[in-house]
Amino acid sequence: MIQVAILGFGTVGSGVLEVLQKNAAQVTRRAGEQVRVKYILDIRDFSGHPNADLFVNSIDPILEDPEVTTVVETIGGTKPAYYYVKSALEAGKNVCTSNKELVATHGAELLSIAVKQGVCFLFEASVGGGTPVITPLHQCLAANVVSSVCGIVNGTTNFMLTRMEYDGMSFEEALKVAQGLGYAETIDPSADVDGIDACRKISILASMIFGSEVHPENVPTRGIREITIDDIYFTKKMKLAVKLIAYARRSEKGGFACGVEPMVLPVESMMASVSDVYNAVLVQGDMLGDVMFYGKGAGKLPTASAVVADIIDAAKLGSSIHDSLFWRPTAPLKGKITDVDSYTYYVRVNNLDVETLKEDLGGVVLTLQHQNQTAVLTLPMSAREMEKRKEKLKKDGIHLATALRMLEV
Amino acid sequence: MIQVAILGFGTVGSGVLEVLQKNAAQVTRRAGEQVRVKYILDIRDFSGHPNADLFVNSIDPILEDPEVTTVVETIGGTKPAYYYVKSALEAGKNVCTSNKELVATHGAELLSIAVKQGVCFLFEASVGGGTPVITPLHQCLAANVVSSVCGIVNGTTNFMLTRMEYDGMSFEEALKVAQGLGYAETIDPSADVDGIDACRKISILASMIFGSEVHPENVPTRGIREITIDDIYFTKKMKLAVKLIAYARRSEKGGFACGVEPMVLPVESMMASVSDVYNAVLVQGDMLGDVMFYGKGAGKLPTASAVVADIIDAAKLGSSIHDSLFWRPTAPLKGKITDVDSYTYYVRVNNLDVETLKEDLGGVVLTLQHQNQTAVLTLPMSAREMEKRKEKLKKDGIHLATALRMLEV
Repeated sequence: MIQVAILGFGTVGSGVLEVLQKNAAQVTRRAGEQVRVKYILDIRDFSGHPNADLFVNSIDPILEDPEVTTVVETIGGTKPAYYYVKSALEAGKNVCTSNKELVATHGAELLSIAVKQGVCFLFEASVGGGTPVITPLHQCLAANVVSSVCGIVNGTTNFMLTRMEYDGMSFEEALKVAQGLGYAETIDPSADVDGIDACRKISILASMIFGSEVHPENVPTRGIREITIDDIYFTKKMKLAVKLIAYARRSEKGGFACGVEPMVLPVESMMASVSDVYNAVLVQGDMLGDVMFYGKGAGKLPTASAVVADIIDAAKLGSSIHDSLFWRPTAPLKGKITDVDSYTYYVRVNNLDVETLKEDLGGVVLTLQHQNQTAVLTLPMSAREMEKRKEKLKKDGIHLATALRMLEV
Repeated sequence: MIQVAILGFGTVGSGVLEVLQKNAAQVTRRAGEQVRVKYILDIRDFSGHPNADLFVNSIDPILEDPEVTTVVETIGGTKPAYYYVKSALEAGKNVCTSNKELVATHGAELLSIAVKQGVCFLFEASVGGGTPVITPLHQCLAANVVSSVCGIVNGTTNFMLTRMEYDGMSFEEALKVAQGLGYAETIDPSADVDGIDACRKISILASMIFGSEVHPENVPTRGIREITIDDIYFTKKMKLAVKLIAYARRSEKGGFACGVEPMVLPVESMMASVSDVYNAVLVQGDMLGDVMFYGKGAGKLPTASAVVADIIDAAKLGSSIHDSLFWRPTAPLKGKITDVDSYTYYVRVNNLDVETLKEDLGGVVLTLQHQNQTAVLTLPMSAREMEKRKEKLKKDGIHLATALRMLEV
């Protein structure tokens, strides 16, 4: 029997208990033995809960109980999650977590503790919620040098962009609907709409594929606040979709690039078909070519089911998994990672002077006008060149309202 | 060091050697030790090959060498592959294969030998080539009861349908192009175009999710020979795509359904966006909801890279994987598995008499006419009801040219 402690009985934590109870037969078959929740750590009062006897309000009995081999961390944030997880690993217990902030911030250190202790530190649910990404990337692409990972890793913003595209909502309207449905935080939705959540997730994937720590604070991150209904209007006419893309890849010119930003992509591409709260991650391996993983990015049971899959893997794989699933700790860079590659840009300006626009942007390949605005696609250029061209436009009295790079997948 | 023997040095077998040589560093990191090819079994003459010293023309030295822990079978077909694989398992060696015919036909028996011997029998590359399906289905959905698996599992027919849809080719023209590119067999392309390959693959996936053997001969299988440019014309107008779909699912009315047939699906669906030689498998888990895996369905290096991932898994997982990755042997059914659920049908007839068509089909929801033909979408009905309605049409002198069910995903 595998005995488990759940830390934090919120949405995902209670989901883990639910999955283990509802699919007990399935889980037992997969794990080869029964999986039982022995403790639930939560400081809130659950005295009326059917499993009230499992609740404890201190980590100590869990750390001291040798029968508990696996600890599930679903508290979120880094305090006290980091301390609890570190203590559990040091006490020789496997840890399975859904906490992207924890993994993005302290992953390298926690993985090295796991290696030293001969236990597992697994985090499938931290990226993509229910979308399997970490395990396939690590296991199925084991024979590949991965050159690129990119995709939609935040369900809330993808839901909002879908509503803006399909229902003609503004950013503010889409945000209200997302908040009403519980997808976005009511008080401060910035973790989602400003790309912070996506930044943490891509930092984890980037660390995995590069094998050394990528710090979230070094990842250039833009959210979707700048996207207006005008952009949706123009991009639709251009047969493009706007998606919040997180990417990490070995750059064509050496080095690597990593970032989070709204990008445009051809509507006929697979990635453009990913709508609502779904996530999708496209991986490029040198042997395998393109592979994509698609699924629900969040939600109680999808995320919990990913945590339970990790509990089973921890039991079966043991610490041998960390021969390869780890990344080296590195000091943070000064400033942001820069992307030197060239991209086509979608550019919108509040101006109808196409000639000046063309000249300042160094030529355009498609021009659309609507009301008082012009939208164009540029020739490929680097981010640095775009900055210079923006200055030129400014000098000519043209305000660049939106500039989005095109993802060609 | 993991010492490996490759049986069959054709496209995939030589690809396995290539992947192991090219990505040696990556593979060693993932496996935790070096992977070395000690023998290659092939009866052809490879005396000029740079690795000529590895070639043997009998299985015996491989079976007798205790240093060889893993055997890769990439011969294809069941003779002599079945005998070799069985002997290797019985000699206590892990087997990793890309051979769908072998797995679909003898999987249950070979898995039970593997369990008894405490070794691995792995076959990721047998379904989807380079598209990871088996491992994610088994591992990432471990906490789920899987209700349905469906998708595009034959790259050749998907390539042909893409050419018919995008380039207006006929079936015959598309087949010629596919043959010219080496995607379809020149002498007898029926394994692909008649759905035999897809049938083997879905038999494997169905056996996995139901936990008991599904025999290919019980799976109703239709290929794409019946699809004409008229069907492509009408379905495009209806904003539908035609795809060869393989499916296995627990039926709404109890029991299960499994089959291979060309189906229509809305162009905006993810599955409709899968073009050319790509494969995609959509899995529905009771906790996880929809998950999709997408990648190249075939090709030397993608398939070989999937085999190498299995070699690494065999080394790391050991036989504990077969606590859950197995299916019970069962006797074949008499006749075909029947699908009792109701579907909307796309129907094309060589006739313009819409009134009779409507009456015989019990009402339609969309009607298009072009030249001498009519295409409609019906109300949902079972396959059995469709057979009756076909008879009615026949009595009224209307020949039903095509009837395709609609996949709603």
